[in-house]
Amino acid sequence: MNTSASTSAFYRPRKIHTVLVANRGEIAVRVIRAAHELGMRAAVVVSDADRDSLAARMADEAVHIGSAHAAKSYLNPSAILAAAQQCGADAIHPGYGFLSENAAFAAQVEAAGLIFVGPSSSVIATMGDKAKARETAQRANVPTVPGSDGVVNSLDEAREVARRIGYPVMIKAAAGGGGRGIRVAHYAAQLDAELPLAQREAQAAFGNAGAYLERFIARARHIEVQVLGDGANVIHLFERECSLQRRRQKILEEAPSPSLKSEQRAALCESATRLAREVGYRSAGTLEYLFDETRGEFYFIEMNTRIQVEHAVTEAITGVDLLREMLRIADGEPLRFTQRDIVLRGAALECRINAEDPEHDFRPSPGRVDELVWPAGPGVRIDSLLYQGYTIPPFYDSLLAKLIVFDESRPAALARLDRALRELRIGGVKTTASLHRVLLADDDVRAGRYHTNFLEAWMSEQRTATGNREETAT
Amino acid sequence: MNTSASTSAFYRPRKIHTVLVANRGEIAVRVIRAAHELGMRAAVVVSDADRDSLAARMADEAVHIGSAHAAKSYLNPSAILAAAQQCGADAIHPGYGFLSENAAFAAQVEAAGLIFVGPSSSVIATMGDKAKARETAQRANVPTVPGSDGVVNSLDEAREVARRIGYPVMIKAAAGGGGRGIRVAHYAAQLDAELPLAQREAQAAFGNAGAYLERFIARARHIEVQVLGDGANVIHLFERECSLQRRRQKILEEAPSPSLKSEQRAALCESATRLAREVGYRSAGTLEYLFDETRGEFYFIEMNTRIQVEHAVTEAITGVDLLREMLRIADGEPLRFTQRDIVLRGAALECRINAEDPEHDFRPSPGRVDELVWPAGPGVRIDSLLYQGYTIPPFYDSLLAKLIVFDESRPAALARLDRALRELRIGGVKTTASLHRVLLADDDVRAGRYHTNFLEAWMSEQRTATGNREETAT
Repeated sequence: MNTSASTSAFYRPRKIHTVLVANRGEIAVRVIRAAHELGMRAAVVVSDADRDSLAARMADEAVHIGSAHAAKSYLNPSAILAAAQQCGADAIHPGYGFLSENAAFAAQVEAAGLIFVGPSSSVIATMGDKAKARETAQRANVPTVPGSDGVVNSLDEAREVARRIGYPVMIKAAAGGGGRGIRVAHYAAQLDAELPLAQREAQAAFGNAGAYLERFIARARHIEVQVLGDGANVIHLFERECSLQRRRQKILEEAPSPSLKSEQRAALCESATRLAREVGYRSAGTLEYLFDETRGEFYFIEMNTRIQVEHAVTEAITGVDLLREMLRIADGEPLRFTQRDIVLRGAALECRINAEDPEHDFRPSPGRVDELVWPAGPGVRIDSLLYQGYTIPPFYDSLLAKLIVFDESRPAALARLDRALRELRIGGVKTTASLHRVLLADDDVRAGRYHTNFLEAWMSEQRTATGNREETAT
Repeated sequence: MNTSASTSAFYRPRKIHTVLVANRGEIAVRVIRAAHELGMRAAVVVSDADRDSLAARMADEAVHIGSAHAAKSYLNPSAILAAAQQCGADAIHPGYGFLSENAAFAAQVEAAGLIFVGPSSSVIATMGDKAKARETAQRANVPTVPGSDGVVNSLDEAREVARRIGYPVMIKAAAGGGGRGIRVAHYAAQLDAELPLAQREAQAAFGNAGAYLERFIARARHIEVQVLGDGANVIHLFERECSLQRRRQKILEEAPSPSLKSEQRAALCESATRLAREVGYRSAGTLEYLFDETRGEFYFIEMNTRIQVEHAVTEAITGVDLLREMLRIADGEPLRFTQRDIVLRGAALECRINAEDPEHDFRPSPGRVDELVWPAGPGVRIDSLLYQGYTIPPFYDSLLAKLIVFDESRPAALARLDRALRELRIGGVKTTASLHRVLLADDDVRAGRYHTNFLEAWMSEQRTATGNREETAT
């Protein structure tokens, strides 16, 4: 008998013997899986509401850090640092959301002598500042949305900028955000009229009259590039298309994008590598772009200095396990790939299954899951926080599961997703699975003809159509 | 709104609009999934015991064909043909086991004007006859186990054969089978003594004194090659290693084989293609070989003219969906791949999870599954007949699920399998998952150092070791 005590000769951790997951839900489960495959111990922080979570069950240790209210737990840096000490963690993985892009938290982790599984706090700070990120992009010769590059000081200047970037233009309040304080001008006279109004409105709303101009892209696509760096080298892992959104929340993602020609893909991905290299990027990161399909031009908007929800479609088409690579890099390993090693194969789609009721304006639908049948078989991957009998708490975001399919081509992947959605059964709560089934029957979605405003327009059409049918039936 | 009625533009069936699955369990589920992805209707036959099976739930139609006793249902050709008529099937997929390699049944399906999803009945008949299969192999210049090529007529002839093939040799009763009537001779004098004994014994046991000789391979590996043909062209999809067996039942399979050098792999796979081409093979098929690692030689033993349980590891390393290809070929499509299209990537392992109690000599453990947690995340695939609350009937083979993992390399796949087995929970019945956990901790298994007798020897060592520990503890 020659039974070894250690289960894995695949990887020997150098520095990270225990990683603490400072997150919850499906991403906590995802990090635990990656850590276990690398032979690392995985601990997870839990709030009162998550003591019985799947992550808590799967982790080697669950450390209670506070009440269900996120500010008292998942958003509380000192509670998380105390938890790290308690469980003897060498590293903290922040997941996405919560403190994942909080430079101050990353700095605290560094100051405590722990490894932050992500880029350095200074890179987080730089890329988290929109103006600095834009400057970095310009330094790296990466296009940004054409605009005034700061506040316009006069109507003449505004006209000059608009002439240069072309109409229609957006007038944006410098102090605005999240779509507030935006007006569109389609010609010079409209700009003359709208700019003073916009400035007065901005003064009233934000106490700051400053406004700037940007090209208005009517049917933009949201395309993002996955990068991986070790601080010295950076590679890209191709792009994801995430244009199917509702209220800026992604609903269905895919890789590769169905809208890029191969030379556009190459230019886009190279630009992302350039930009990430400019800041000596370490870990996994995503560069978000708007793609103007009409012009065939892309513009960098911002960088997410963390893992993203939709990373799994990239894992499917490249065969690279991004979470394991993040942990290995954090553990001090150099990047294991050159750009030539990364080959795009097939197509992947991801549906976000949320505990929301699409029939009633997507209102949250927490509760007990009393039936659970996962789709399975070839090319189907589930990343989820659910188990049968689990009670979904009402305190956090509504993502229950990601249903990811992979196949040899996009049409094949669509057929696979159809059959997988047919198999899925989540009983006891309402979910967005029903929305996905309808959405996937749409010809434009099937053909990949969509943009960031498509889904909301599509949903109002659906409502109108349903309303009309109901009226007819009455 | 432009919602199309048809869900899939991926494939348009030519002849097969409805396929009837003449099987049960996980393979019935597997065929239904493939059919649905191709836009085909899928019906399934069910016995009394399977009215509530997962396959029955997933199929578009379940046709009851008889009692739980297989002879009255899954082994009853006329009941199946009647079911095909009842559900308007154009084709019958036989799965594995039951009637899948029954040439007479295939001929009946053909005679009824239906498509048999597999090779022609005449190819099934040829390859199902051991002597004819061996002749075919020799014609195709594919090595078979060196031996007397038929009954030896005298001691002189036996000595001559033994000298040619080399000692040790096996003396096998021509009328024997399943390991009965086998003796081993390590040198000429032993052959002189054993042959007459073997002949007398064979006469007594089988009424036929005929005996033949074969080279004895002490530590053989069971390696098999997957092929796919359309009647005109044949390609291979590399090999699977299935040496971890208990009583000739495969327990854990992997692809590629950890024991082949690349030139051996190339020669083996080419020989399989040659053999399948010799019979104008159509559909998916598997050529089984013994591999003598010491000599570095392989010998064809037999062909399975059907899909196999362990096909999923091949799907993982090649990216080819074998069930869909079977259905497309049966539907009249030519082979879509040339040999160059088939590239081996990464490594895959499959654990068979059976409803058996490894602590009590693998006695069957049917019953109600009251808890079910599947492993998930990247590189994990489940093919199963289970759902939570399902009652496993006691009438059929004990396979509950196949847990398949895929990763960039064999060591990585082993680590992934470890973590997946940790996640798996099947409550209410005993399963072989516990055996897999122990087996995967063994250094020889992890290193790929095993042969067809390895597992049984390993299990008796484990028992002895456990026994010793128990004695010590007492």
